[in-house]
Amino acid sequence: MSDGLQFARRIRTSPYFERVRQHGVTGYSVYNHMILPKSFGMSVEDSYWHLNENVQIWDVSVQRQVEITGPDAARLVQWLTPRDLRQAETGRCYYIPVVDRDGGMLNDPVLLKLAADRFWLSVADSDLLLYVKGLAIGGGYDVSVEEPDVNPLAIQGPKAVSVIAALFGEVVAKLKFFHFTHIDLFGTRQIVSRSGFSSAAGFEIYLDDPTLAEPLWDLVWDAGQPFGMKAGGPNLIDRIEAGLLGYGNEMTRENNPLEMGYGKVCTLDGSIDCIGLQALQAISAAGPSKVIRGVRFEGPPCPSCHVPWPVHKGERKIGQITSAAWSPRLKANVGLSLIDRGYLEAGQQVQVTLPDGSQTGGVICDLPFRKG
Amino acid sequence: MSDGLQFARRIRTSPYFERVRQHGVTGYSVYNHMILPKSFGMSVEDSYWHLNENVQIWDVSVQRQVEITGPDAARLVQWLTPRDLRQAETGRCYYIPVVDRDGGMLNDPVLLKLAADRFWLSVADSDLLLYVKGLAIGGGYDVSVEEPDVNPLAIQGPKAVSVIAALFGEVVAKLKFFHFTHIDLFGTRQIVSRSGFSSAAGFEIYLDDPTLAEPLWDLVWDAGQPFGMKAGGPNLIDRIEAGLLGYGNEMTRENNPLEMGYGKVCTLDGSIDCIGLQALQAISAAGPSKVIRGVRFEGPPCPSCHVPWPVHKGERKIGQITSAAWSPRLKANVGLSLIDRGYLEAGQQVQVTLPDGSQTGGVICDLPFRKG
Repeated sequence: MSDGLQFARRIRTSPYFERVRQHGVTGYSVYNHMILPKSFGMSVEDSYWHLNENVQIWDVSVQRQVEITGPDAARLVQWLTPRDLRQAETGRCYYIPVVDRDGGMLNDPVLLKLAADRFWLSVADSDLLLYVKGLAIGGGYDVSVEEPDVNPLAIQGPKAVSVIAALFGEVVAKLKFFHFTHIDLFGTRQIVSRSGFSSAAGFEIYLDDPTLAEPLWDLVWDAGQPFGMKAGGPNLIDRIEAGLLGYGNEMTRENNPLEMGYGKVCTLDGSIDCIGLQALQAISAAGPSKVIRGVRFEGPPCPSCHVPWPVHKGERKIGQITSAAWSPRLKANVGLSLIDRGYLEAGQQVQVTLPDGSQTGGVICDLPFRKG
Repeated sequence: MSDGLQFARRIRTSPYFERVRQHGVTGYSVYNHMILPKSFGMSVEDSYWHLNENVQIWDVSVQRQVEITGPDAARLVQWLTPRDLRQAETGRCYYIPVVDRDGGMLNDPVLLKLAADRFWLSVADSDLLLYVKGLAIGGGYDVSVEEPDVNPLAIQGPKAVSVIAALFGEVVAKLKFFHFTHIDLFGTRQIVSRSGFSSAAGFEIYLDDPTLAEPLWDLVWDAGQPFGMKAGGPNLIDRIEAGLLGYGNEMTRENNPLEMGYGKVCTLDGSIDCIGLQALQAISAAGPSKVIRGVRFEGPPCPSCHVPWPVHKGERKIGQITSAAWSPRLKANVGLSLIDRGYLEAGQQVQVTLPDGSQTGGVICDLPFRKG
């Protein structure tokens, strides 16, 4: 059952879609009610090597922006997350967990501070727009909350710096990680950030004019050819090795940020007020009951994981793998797994149960498996 | 590009999935972060005839329930929609538009009133859960807002009544449209409603225990065999003929309920207070600028519509088709289209522009094209 997605307007295509089609897209996902192109004829493994040695162009329009503007914007954004944003600077990106009153994750967007009263939440796969609208209406905040038609285009891989330098100059190419700036593009002002969902990262151009999508794609493509650019998308092997967690995969509303290793960006001492503070304080005081870890395991290359795979220590179930892939670099399967506390130490032997019911030996590992 | 959806935990499968797979699913969609099985080897046209003459079993687990319980539940539900729910009765279903402050549609769920302080919103394809959570947190409502693991199984088509009578008796089979009751299922108490996303409608069983999913599927399947039951899913031809509108297809946040013909379920006289009331009152006073209509148009069977197709009257663009199919019964293509006021009258000649750029003649029609 790997084929047969029926298209409808409800599953939106991006303004790069014609180019994506021309480049021969073969694999994709659905994310935020949009098509996310993931592969272009190459195997996941071939694309992994290419991404890690060259540079790729990715249509990541699925990273929708929730734009919050108005007199109460900063107050609402701070209420939304346990991350302390009092010192947040314009021109910077911030990874912010967003949690329910009970501390459960609702999304894990990247916040872009555009101005003192204007923010973008670059969101993972849930309608955070509706949550923020609900908060604003319910709480009577004086803000506008919209989804502008911004369609990010990513340039990812070690040679992304060279491509950006050729296109927009050295100043842009030397942006620090999670900083953004403005570029002139065909006479318009666009945002480019040093960021992306790969181990090497790269840059993301937040194009706010769909009519410029194909010209932008062509511009980037032409500039990338001397550096071996190919079309690609978020790579499963790369993201697992890098320990990049996916909302809906590694975490759902059942999980809290402390389980996900995001405690370091949460300020729980009471100096800020935010939704879920008391729940997170209680979890922090008791310690999270499980924590995200890596599991390296034996056997031939594993299938893709779309229903969690149990992880056992002897008779006891101690966790579940939620994303897994064969790592050609580590020559082993690697998985991301929530593991019960008491079993977190690296090097412990465990057993992984695969979808066919077979068991294979594994070992608990630190994350990331490999640094970008 | 009709193949290649890459599976992940983020795109959830239902507890009926193994049965769906065994029945040879060939086409599906992604809806509310879940797989929606749509076809099983038959063409859309063959399945249309089968659905309209026999009975089908559909896995519609994608219709997730947003459960609102607590002392403030009724007050919050009324605030959520311009439909007057003051006389709403337990055991009844209500179609309720949910709109933003500016009147734009956020979802169009079916409300099930389970008790005076307990409601389900059976939602279309957007995370209404997050909106309701936001409203509850923002407004300080004393409610719990959750998504229980309820997985509806639909029995649709003219012989659905016979199948339900054989399974659960005449009283259940004689339920009125949009009423629900409780049944005993393997010693558990489950909800069954007279409803569904087809012209003939039928019944939906809101199974609240995933471990009973395969036994329920088998029970229904066995009871359905004397009536020619096959596996199926929401049928594009049938829903267009019946004028059943899809959130994300016919309407988005850009549209208001008056454009969609839902004015008849909106109470705008000020006797209820709800989000978007003032915006809807203003739209109502001025009259909606466009209204949903049918368009019948010539030519060979049209492709599926996933980017809106312009509708012109001479040089003037007067609307766009958002869903279209060949109707084997009407022997013409049929589409659902928002049409500018001034051009709403049935019988008017228009031109439809297809994805290949060709134009074909059409005519404005009343909805539904055909009653169930």
